[in-house]
Amino acid sequence: MNGPSPADDADRMARVALTWLAEPGNRAVWHLVEVAGAEATLDRLLGGDIPESTLRAAVISRTAAGDPRRLAEVALLRADRLGARVVVPGDPEWPAGVEALSTLELEGGDRINRDVRPPLCLWVRGGRRLDEAFARSVAVVGARAATSYGTHVTNDLAYGLAERGWTVVSGGAFGIDAAAHRAALAAGGLTVAVLACGVDRPYPAGNAAMFERIAESGLLMSEWPPGSEPLRHRFLIRNRVIAAATVGTVIVEAAARSGAVQTLSRTVALGRRAMVVPGPVTSAMSVGCHELLRRQPETVVVTGTAHVLEEVGRIGEYLAEIPRGREHARDDLDEDSALVLEAMPRRGTVGPEDLAAKAGLGIRTVLRRLSLLEMAGLVVRQDNGVALARPVRKAPP
Amino acid sequence: MNGPSPADDADRMARVALTWLAEPGNRAVWHLVEVAGAEATLDRLLGGDIPESTLRAAVISRTAAGDPRRLAEVALLRADRLGARVVVPGDPEWPAGVEALSTLELEGGDRINRDVRPPLCLWVRGGRRLDEAFARSVAVVGARAATSYGTHVTNDLAYGLAERGWTVVSGGAFGIDAAAHRAALAAGGLTVAVLACGVDRPYPAGNAAMFERIAESGLLMSEWPPGSEPLRHRFLIRNRVIAAATVGTVIVEAAARSGAVQTLSRTVALGRRAMVVPGPVTSAMSVGCHELLRRQPETVVVTGTAHVLEEVGRIGEYLAEIPRGREHARDDLDEDSALVLEAMPRRGTVGPEDLAAKAGLGIRTVLRRLSLLEMAGLVVRQDNGVALARPVRKAPP
Repeated sequence: MNGPSPADDADRMARVALTWLAEPGNRAVWHLVEVAGAEATLDRLLGGDIPESTLRAAVISRTAAGDPRRLAEVALLRADRLGARVVVPGDPEWPAGVEALSTLELEGGDRINRDVRPPLCLWVRGGRRLDEAFARSVAVVGARAATSYGTHVTNDLAYGLAERGWTVVSGGAFGIDAAAHRAALAAGGLTVAVLACGVDRPYPAGNAAMFERIAESGLLMSEWPPGSEPLRHRFLIRNRVIAAATVGTVIVEAAARSGAVQTLSRTVALGRRAMVVPGPVTSAMSVGCHELLRRQPETVVVTGTAHVLEEVGRIGEYLAEIPRGREHARDDLDEDSALVLEAMPRRGTVGPEDLAAKAGLGIRTVLRRLSLLEMAGLVVRQDNGVALARPVRKAPP
Repeated sequence: MNGPSPADDADRMARVALTWLAEPGNRAVWHLVEVAGAEATLDRLLGGDIPESTLRAAVISRTAAGDPRRLAEVALLRADRLGARVVVPGDPEWPAGVEALSTLELEGGDRINRDVRPPLCLWVRGGRRLDEAFARSVAVVGARAATSYGTHVTNDLAYGLAERGWTVVSGGAFGIDAAAHRAALAAGGLTVAVLACGVDRPYPAGNAAMFERIAESGLLMSEWPPGSEPLRHRFLIRNRVIAAATVGTVIVEAAARSGAVQTLSRTVALGRRAMVVPGPVTSAMSVGCHELLRRQPETVVVTGTAHVLEEVGRIGEYLAEIPRGREHARDDLDEDSALVLEAMPRRGTVGPEDLAAKAGLGIRTVLRRLSLLEMAGLVVRQDNGVALARPVRKAPP
């Protein structure tokens, strides 16, 4: 793998160990890690110097179950045997999108709405790079109790997206999620299952064969270490990652007041494209979709692949104009991204090292900026390097 | 009928005669009538003093077919035999909503988008007052080639609206329109068919039995005199009246680029509630509905009667607060309407004459203001007079 040397092993180990002390997304822990780093934070929490009382109580009860450092070592060994890896910020394949959770503020003071900070680490099974997989990705999620209408529409949609080179991201559940993964696999495309349990025992077991196929050609990903149970609240925690890591989220079917509705409100809050497939008003499985269309003005109706591409392509379309006008580039992009973009050859590909040299930037900066530019649809990764993206053609409605 | 003496017979006759010289909605003719009155306008046009060349050509070719004054007399006699009447502005039952067309400006310079001015007169069959019928009215329109899904949803919706005292307005066509009229009739409610041909020969003939029932318990209404053909362009001209006369319009099914889509863009431009029933994305008859939801941000998804009432009720809800705060009433209502509202008894009904005496206003003014206040949901007409409306309860979503 090209790119910087892997992040410091002690940092990686500390991030894994922190997973035993608090659920992913915990605001206090994430903030401490941002300020002092993962190792110092782990030391501090294990030393009992914990400002927040809820967190203090959690740390006390969880350390009683075992030494987090030791548990982390075991988990990493277990992952290694399983062919899984743990990815942390600083690794070249860290998906840039999840960093948007750093500043997400949601209404409602409960834990689920407050503890939405970025993952500390991501456990991954599968041979593809995370950042590449998410650069052009759409989440397709919905009801477990899907109707034949819902699975039919999901199949068309996910197949079409995968066929056009978009990664289909979903949650691995029965119903719409499984239909989305399967259609992407059938199209020979890339699909990512974002799990609420360990990547060694993806839930539900009834989808085991599908998960194996995803691990072979796509990616299984989780914030929880191998062996973790799919506890109920973890699905809600997990949903924020699906919303943040992708360019947009499509809800195909959802019952009234379902988890899909929560996912889409996060999607909106994160500035990602929020899309809904309508259905018969006589179907209970479309009630949540229609609720969303009534209550979330940012939610857009999509009826097929072309509409979804029109939505997620807009980001690229808009920004794709930028390289032509230097003033715009300087206005809308941060300085480093603009430098990287200007250093790109007008035709053909370039390797990150050459790009770093030409732009006068460090390789780490260049790789991070490339992830962002790729997510924005400005550059595309190819086998032998990166290239300027051609403007996305407007899909017919 | 209570109220002022009927508008001047010469004015009525002139308005009818003008229908032979230009299609309803004609901007130049309407403007001349506004400035100089119908009789002077008719004299001027028949005298050949016509500023606009298109109109001049039309008048020349149409007067060749006969004397408009004579044709108007014949039409009025024919209407009389049929039990039909012609209603003109100034008549107490003139529906206030159509006056919103006075200031409607649409994009696109073609005739259909330019000539959207109010009707000069309305031909009516049926025993109900037009103004009362439209005061609490919702248009339910859609595809002629409706699916069983569309007619099923229309039936539920129109029945529910009619049952709750809302007039169901539609265009009398096959499919969604007919389903809407029939459901309103079945509910024992009030329904109005707004036609693009004479009220003596409602089109299509296949719905003749339905039209007879509407004439008995509801209203048939048209801008064209008895005997007029349902020419293709007249449906588009007619649509602006459906949009303007009602509080809101619901599209149940519509194919891509259908007339329903045009009706709803007029609805939006007129500030009326624009509502769409979604459907399966696999149905060609819902493509127009989903298009509208994607392209017209003002369009709201409705899935049943409760949603529609929530939308059209909002106007009433909002304004219903006004009587409690006098400052608001003076801010938001014109002076005469505020006087009428203040003269209303807090409980029970009052006759228009008593109200006029109490408010210190002419009966004609009071009746006009009552129509507006009724349309706004502030007052309701009852058998023995008018009463203050109780605030509309928010329907459950």
